[in-house]
Amino acid sequence: MKHEVNLEKYQIHTDLAIDVLDRKSDLKGVKKEVNVYDNITVTDVCLDSINSLNKSKGNYITIEFDDITDSDNYNSVKKVVVTELKNILKKMKIKNNDKCLFIGLGNAASTPDSLGPKVKNNIIVTSHIYKLGTLDSNYRVVSAISPGVMGTTGIETHDIIESIVKKIKPDFVIVVDALASESIDRLNKTIQMTDTGIHPGSGIGNERREISFNSLNIPVLAIGVPTVASAAVIVSDTINYMYKHYEFNKEYIKNPKSKLTFNNINYLNKNITINKKDKEELFGIIGMLNENEIKSLMNEVLNPIGYNLMVTPKEIDFVIDRLSTLIGASLNETLHNINC
Amino acid sequence: MKHEVNLEKYQIHTDLAIDVLDRKSDLKGVKKEVNVYDNITVTDVCLDSINSLNKSKGNYITIEFDDITDSDNYNSVKKVVVTELKNILKKMKIKNNDKCLFIGLGNAASTPDSLGPKVKNNIIVTSHIYKLGTLDSNYRVVSAISPGVMGTTGIETHDIIESIVKKIKPDFVIVVDALASESIDRLNKTIQMTDTGIHPGSGIGNERREISFNSLNIPVLAIGVPTVASAAVIVSDTINYMYKHYEFNKEYIKNPKSKLTFNNINYLNKNITINKKDKEELFGIIGMLNENEIKSLMNEVLNPIGYNLMVTPKEIDFVIDRLSTLIGASLNETLHNINC
Amino acid sequence: MKHEVNLEKYQIHTDLAIDVLDRKSDLKGVKKEVNVYDNITVTDVCLDSINSLNKSKGNYITIEFDDITDSDNYNSVKKVVVTELKNILKKMKIKNNDKCLFIGLGNAASTPDSLGPKVKNNIIVTSHIYKLGTLDSNYRVVSAISPGVMGTTGIETHDIIESIVKKIKPDFVIVVDALASESIDRLNKTIQMTDTGIHPGSGIGNERREISFNSLNIPVLAIGVPTVASAAVIVSDTINYMYKHYEFNKEYIKNPKSKLTFNNINYLNKNITINKKDKEELFGIIGMLNENEIKSLMNEVLNPIGYNLMVTPKEIDFVIDRLSTLIGASLNETLHNINC
Amino acid sequence: MKHEVNLEKYQIHTDLAIDVLDRKSDLKGVKKEVNVYDNITVTDVCLDSINSLNKSKGNYITIEFDDITDSDNYNSVKKVVVTELKNILKKMKIKNNDKCLFIGLGNAASTPDSLGPKVKNNIIVTSHIYKLGTLDSNYRVVSAISPGVMGTTGIETHDIIESIVKKIKPDFVIVVDALASESIDRLNKTIQMTDTGIHPGSGIGNERREISFNSLNIPVLAIGVPTVASAAVIVSDTINYMYKHYEFNKEYIKNPKSKLTFNNINYLNKNITINKKDKEELFGIIGMLNENEIKSLMNEVLNPIGYNLMVTPKEIDFVIDRLSTLIGASLNETLHNINC
Repeated sequence: MKHEVNLEKYQIHTDLAIDVLDRKSDLKGVKKEVNVYDNITVTDVCLDSINSLNKSKGNYITIEFDDITDSDNYNSVKKVVVTELKNILKKMKIKNNDKCLFIGLGNAASTPDSLGPKVKNNIIVTSHIYKLGTLDSNYRVVSAISPGVMGTTGIETHDIIESIVKKIKPDFVIVVDALASESIDRLNKTIQMTDTGIHPGSGIGNERREISFNSLNIPVLAIGVPTVASAAVIVSDTINYMYKHYEFNKEYIKNPKSKLTFNNINYLNKNITINKKDKEELFGIIGMLNENEIKSLMNEVLNPIGYNLMVTPKEIDFVIDRLSTLIGASLNETLHNINC
Repeated sequence: MKHEVNLEKYQIHTDLAIDVLDRKSDLKGVKKEVNVYDNITVTDVCLDSINSLNKSKGNYITIEFDDITDSDNYNSVKKVVVTELKNILKKMKIKNNDKCLFIGLGNAASTPDSLGPKVKNNIIVTSHIYKLGTLDSNYRVVSAISPGVMGTTGIETHDIIESIVKKIKPDFVIVVDALASESIDRLNKTIQMTDTGIHPGSGIGNERREISFNSLNIPVLAIGVPTVASAAVIVSDTINYMYKHYEFNKEYIKNPKSKLTFNNINYLNKNITINKKDKEELFGIIGMLNENEIKSLMNEVLNPIGYNLMVTPKEIDFVIDRLSTLIGASLNETLHNINC
Repeated sequence: MKHEVNLEKYQIHTDLAIDVLDRKSDLKGVKKEVNVYDNITVTDVCLDSINSLNKSKGNYITIEFDDITDSDNYNSVKKVVVTELKNILKKMKIKNNDKCLFIGLGNAASTPDSLGPKVKNNIIVTSHIYKLGTLDSNYRVVSAISPGVMGTTGIETHDIIESIVKKIKPDFVIVVDALASESIDRLNKTIQMTDTGIHPGSGIGNERREISFNSLNIPVLAIGVPTVASAAVIVSDTINYMYKHYEFNKEYIKNPKSKLTFNNINYLNKNITINKKDKEELFGIIGMLNENEIKSLMNEVLNPIGYNLMVTPKEIDFVIDRLSTLIGASLNETLHNINC
Repeated sequence: MKHEVNLEKYQIHTDLAIDVLDRKSDLKGVKKEVNVYDNITVTDVCLDSINSLNKSKGNYITIEFDDITDSDNYNSVKKVVVTELKNILKKMKIKNNDKCLFIGLGNAASTPDSLGPKVKNNIIVTSHIYKLGTLDSNYRVVSAISPGVMGTTGIETHDIIESIVKKIKPDFVIVVDALASESIDRLNKTIQMTDTGIHPGSGIGNERREISFNSLNIPVLAIGVPTVASAAVIVSDTINYMYKHYEFNKEYIKNPKSKLTFNNINYLNKNITINKKDKEELFGIIGMLNENEIKSLMNEVLNPIGYNLMVTPKEIDFVIDRLSTLIGASLNETLHNINC
C-alpha cells in the first residue's frame, strides 16, 4: 500500500529563512555566511532575485542564542543584535538623519503575539520633539505606532500603516512581529532581521497583505521572533529526535561502559548517522517520509479535527518581557546615538 | 490694597459644558433641559452658533450619577446612557446602516488616561467580517482604533485619525476620551456626549488639533468622562464648601436642637444663603473674589512653583474598569441591535 | 531487535482522574456515572480506599465542555458548575454557615499558571465584614488568599497555607489551581472538582506537599483546569489520531462517493476500528507500543535533550480570563446565596 | 466671633516623621542630622523613648529627591538608598547571614497602593534554593510574600504575617508600603526607612494592627513612600503657598526691575518673611489659624460631605514602576552581595 500524503495540499508555513535553508540542499542564487560568537550564532543569507528558496530577494540575518535571562548572556546578545542592526541598515543605505517609523505589529492583549506592541513601548520617540526644534543632535527623528490586529480593529493592518506612512512620510520603516516557528528548538531563541519586509501568512495574526518596499515605497526592515509553533511542528521535530535516539541507543547498547553514564547523556551532542532501514523499522510507513512529507501529513491529520493547535511555552510571559526589553534597547542604541 | 489677580492671564480650562453653565448667568443662544431619573441627572444643552458660552454650536448631553459599583445602579445608568446615545445619534442624523469608526483616545499605560483604549477593547468590531460577506443583520459595520498619544507615538493624534478616516471612509466617528474636570464632585461621576467633537486643550493628553466635523468632514460624536482635576480646582471647590460650612455653623449654633445631631449632618443638603460680608470676614481678600477669580489666582500661585498637580482619586483603577465596561456595553447596544 | 522503553523510569504525570480511567480497563473499587447536558459532559467518579487507579479515595467530578466564549454556552456551563459544586459540598457535609478559606494557587505573573490568583480576585470575601457584625444573612463567611509559588516566595506553599489555616481556623478550604493535561483535547475545556485535595506533582508549579484533609485536618475541595500539556502528550495524542486517520482513509478509498466530500470530513466522528496489523505497518516498532509505553518513550526521548516543553495554546490570555470569571461567579453563587 | 475648629476631633494623619518635625519647634528627646548629596537630602532622626513627637522610639531616615525618571538621577538616588539601608540594618544589628522575610504590603490591583507588591516582584528570593543546599555564598537567605489587603482577603494582614513568621522563623523582616502624605511636595519624592515598623493608620489600606518588633518579636525595617494625599492636605499646602506668593508680590511690586522677569520667578526660592497681619488681611479668620488648625478645619469641612478624597498624581503608573524598580534593586544589593 502506498501512502496517500498530498504534498501540494498543505503549504509548509515558515517565517524563518533558515528553516527553509535547513530543508534544501540545492542552493542556486543563495549566499550564506555563518559566524559564531560564544553561544550566539549569526547566519547571514543573501538571496538573488531568482533564488531556489521561493523567498523574496534580499538579506536575512538570523541570530540564534540560548538564554537571555542571565544578565551576562543578555548583554552579549544585545551587543550582537546592535551590530547586526547597524550592518543591515547600512546595506539598506539608511542614512543617520533618515526619519524612522517604528511599527509594533501584533495583539497587545495576547501574550505570545504582544512582542511588537511591547517593543513599541520601549522605543524612544522623538518626532514631536523634533517639530518643536529642541531635539538633541544625538537623536534621530523616530515615531512609533501599534496598529493592532484586524480581529480587534476590523481594519486590515496594512491599510492603517499605508495611510500613516502617506501622511507622516518617514524615510524608512522598522516593523517588529511575533512569528510562527518551524522547529521547537528555535522558539523564543531566534531573532530574524530582513530587508524584505513582512509577507502574507507571516506573523501570528495572519494578515493578508505584505508590508515591504513594494507596498510602501520606502525601505522596510522587518524583525521577527518565533514565539509559537503548531502541534504538527512538535510532532515532526519529535519524530526526528526519535530517529537519533534510536540510533544512539543501538550504538550504545554495544558499548559496555555506557551502563554507568546513561542518564546524563544528551544524544544530540553525539555524531549519529541515521540509517534509512532503521527509520522504516522504527516507524513503518511514516519512516519512509522525508521531513516535508511528515509535516504535510501531520497537517492533513490534525487540521480537519481541529487539533493542530498553535502553542507557546508556558514561560511565555517572562520570555516576551525579556525579548521586548532587549530588542527595544538594541533599536534605541542603533537608531539614536546613545547607550541603553 | 487691591488684589492683583490678572484674570486674562489664565485661561480657565474646562471640558464640561455644564461647568461653564454653572458659572454663567447670562444665557443667550442657550437652550437647557434637565431630567432626573432616580439618582441620575441628565442635562441637555443646545447651543446656537452665536451663544454666550464661547463653546462650539451643538448639543451637549451630560449624565451625572453617584455610583456604578453597585450592579443595580450600574444597570440604571447604562439604560440612561443607551437612551441618550440613541437620541444624540438621531439628532446627528446617523442612519442604522451608517459605518462607524470608534476611536479610543488616551494612553493605555496611564490609568487615569486609559478610558478611551479600555472602551475600545470592549467594542464589538465587525468591519472585517462584513467584508467577508458574513455579517449578521443585527450588526452595524464598526471598526475601532486606539491611536495612542503624541508623547508615545511622536505623531499628532489628529494626523493618525485623519489618514485612517481618509483610507477606510466611515460615515461617522465616535471618540471616547478622559477629560480634566472643573469640580471634584463630578470626577468619575459624569458622562458628557456632544456632537461638537473634541477640542484643543480637552482631554488629559492635551493634543493640539480638534477632532470634529470641521476637521474630518463626517459627523463626530465625542464621549468624555472627567477623571482628573488640578490642585487649583480642589482648592477652589474647598473654599466654596468652607463658605457653606461657615454659614451653616453660624445658623446652627443659634439652634439648641442641633447639639444632638451634629455629626450626622451633611450641610450641603441644607438651604444656605452665603452672606457677602461673612465671606470677607472668613476669608479676607480672598473672600472678595468670585469663583473664576479664585481659580485664576490658584493657577497664578501654583503654576510657577510646579505644584498645580493634575490628580486622580486613589480608586482610579477600579473606577476606570467599571466605566469602560459600562460605556463599551452601552455603545455595543446602541451601535448593534443586541443586548449586552 | 526489541524496543528498550523502560516503563518504570518515567512516571506518567496526570492530574485528571478521567485521564487515568481512560487508560485502564480493570476497575476495582471504582464507581462511575456519566451525564450529558447539551454539549456538556459530567463524569462522576467515586473511588474506594483500595481502588485500582492509584488515586486517593474520594469523589472526582469532571465537567467537559467545548466553548465558553459564546455567552449562551458560558451560562450553560456555569449552571452545571454551580450544580456540581453544590453536590460535592453536600457530599463533603459542608453546612451553610461553615466558614470558607479560598486559596488561589499559582503564579499571577505567568498567564497559564494564573488561574488560581485570577479566580481569587473574583471571590466575594466577607470575613472582615462579619467581624464588624454587619454581614447580610445571604452571605457566608469567606476569606481568600493567593499564597504565590515557591519560585517567587522562597517558601513552600503548603507552609503558608497551613500557618494561615491554623491562625484563622476556617471550617473548610477550597483551592483552585491550573493543572497539566494528559491530552490536548481536554486543554482548557475541563473543570475537575475533587474532595481529595491537591497532590504532589499536581499543578504547574509542582509544589511538593499535598493540600488535603490529611495535611490540614479540615475538608478540602480542589478545583482544577488543565491549561498546559507537554510535548510528549501532543506527540502521543497525534500518533493516536494518525491511526484513526489511516484507517479512515483506507476505508474511504474503497468508496467512490468520497471524492466529493473529502475536505469537510472530521474522521473522529466516524466509527473506526483500529487494526493491530495496520498500526505496525504504519508505525513500525512504535506501532507495537500501547499509549502508556508511547508516552514513556516520548519522555525518554525528549527529557534528556531539554525539548519536553510544557506548552499552552496561544489564546491562553483570553481563555484564562473567561475561565476565572466563570469559576469565580460559580463559587460566589454556591458559597453565598446570591446570583452572579 | 471666634472660630469653632475643634482641634481634638480630627487626628492629624501623617506617616512621615519629618512631617511631624516640620510642625514642631520643641524637640525634647530628638536627635536630627541632615546631609545633602547633590539634589538628594537625607534626614536622620533618632527619637528617645520619651520624645516630644508622639512617635515610637527609634531611627527614621528620610531620603528626599526630585526626579528618578532620568537615569543619572536614578543611579544617584539608588546609591544613597543602598548606603542608608546598610546603615540602618547595621544599627538594627542585622548580621550578614541573618535570614530575611520581605513583605510587600498593599493592593496589587490599585496602582497607588501597589508599591509593596511590585517591589516584592523585584526581590531575589533564595530560601528554597538554600534548602536544596545549593545557594551561592554571595546570597543571603531571603523569602518574600505579598499578603494582600483586608478588603480583598477578609483577613487582617497582621494575622497572615504573624502566622508565616511563626512558621518560617526569619531573623528579621523588611516591609514596604505606600503611605499617605502630609504635603504635596513630598508625594512620590520621599523614601522613609525606620526600625520602628508600620503603625496603625499608616499606609493607604489602613490596617488596624502594627507590624513591629513588639508584635513579631524580631527586628522590623519599614520602608515607605508617600503616594497619596488628601484634598485637605492640598488645600492646606496651597494656603501656605498663597501667603508666600502674597508677600513676594507685595515686595516685588515696589521693585521696578521686576516687570521684566515676572513670569520666570519661582517665589519659593526667595527668602520671604510672612507677616502675621498680612495673613489676616489676605485670609480673614482662616489667616489666624496655624497649619494644624487649618488641616483640622479642612477635615471638618470636607469629611461630612464626602469630598476629602485621597488623590494621587495622574502619572502614578510610571512613578510606581520606577520606584519599585529602584527600591527592589537597592534591597537586592543590600541583602545579597551583588550589583543590580
